[in-house]
Amino acid sequence: MKRNTVLSCTAAFLFVATAAAHGVGTPTPAQRAVDYRQGVYHAIGWNFGPMAGMVKGEIPFDAKDFALRAERVAFLSTLPLEGFIPNSRVGKTDAKQEIWDNMDDFKSKMKTFQTEAGKLAEAAKTASAVDALKPQFGKVGQACKDCHDKYKED
Amino acid sequence: MKRNTVLSCTAAFLFVATAAAHGVGTPTPAQRAVDYRQGVYHAIGWNFGPMAGMVKGEIPFDAKDFALRAERVAFLSTLPLEGFIPNSRVGKTDAKQEIWDNMDDFKSKMKTFQTEAGKLAEAAKTASAVDALKPQFGKVGQACKDCHDKYKED
Repeated sequence: MKRNTVLSCTAAFLFVATAAAHGVGTPTPAQRAVDYRQGVYHAIGWNFGPMAGMVKGEIPFDAKDFALRAERVAFLSTLPLEGFIPNSRVGKTDAKQEIWDNMDDFKSKMKTFQTEAGKLAEAAKTASAVDALKPQFGKVGQACKDCHDKYKED
Repeated sequence: MKRNTVLSCTAAFLFVATAAAHGVGTPTPAQRAVDYRQGVYHAIGWNFGPMAGMVKGEIPFDAKDFALRAERVAFLSTLPLEGFIPNSRVGKTDAKQEIWDNMDDFKSKMKTFQTEAGKLAEAAKTASAVDALKPQFGKVGQACKDCHDKYKED
């Protein structure tokens, strides 16, 4: 069946891509979870960076670009949690065991991040000056920091 | 300034996180671009997998979960392109030089992926059976494959 061939190829590609990135065979479910959540954090960082640059005055404020990146971070903020599956503190990870020992608190901190990132995305839709966005941007940064301080290796 | 401290801490965290993942110092812009686009692809693969499982009948169809993952893939499909900056074929990457030699065609293939993924997300909002989603899922898979065949190392 042609369709099945396409599906199988695609699935194979994705697994091979992940495996190749680590120079090993098919990754374990735990390693895939690590790759997933780290991948999402990389994507968050990539989009957070230019916003931070604008807030700090290091690069010119571009309302459209800021709004786009704020929307992305808000969307991406909803993704990492499901990557913290049981027994996935494997390989190169900065995730502390405390995450799994305090999952309710970890979820609560992730929810705060999502809420604040969502508010920033909403505010950025209509803001015409970066000053109007600084307080909410600070809240998003604080939400990152609050979680990292407790649950991320230095 | 408290706010600036928070911002600086957050920015530092993000860079350290990226660097730590590679066991080196602050990554170059090219390496950050690689990390970003690979991170997005990991996130796409993580969400594509369960949909493929449902389409192939390996796991039970869950309309709500399928729709969520289709929406995520559609959103994520808009992200990777900006990671393919000039001179970023560095480190562990499966990106072929042909991407930069044929950027217009690469962009066109990425656009096809975005369009087909968007159609799948739209269809998944109302589909009550997986059979109704198979043709469009196949088109998304084909869009992945068409780009990988030409622009991704085996």
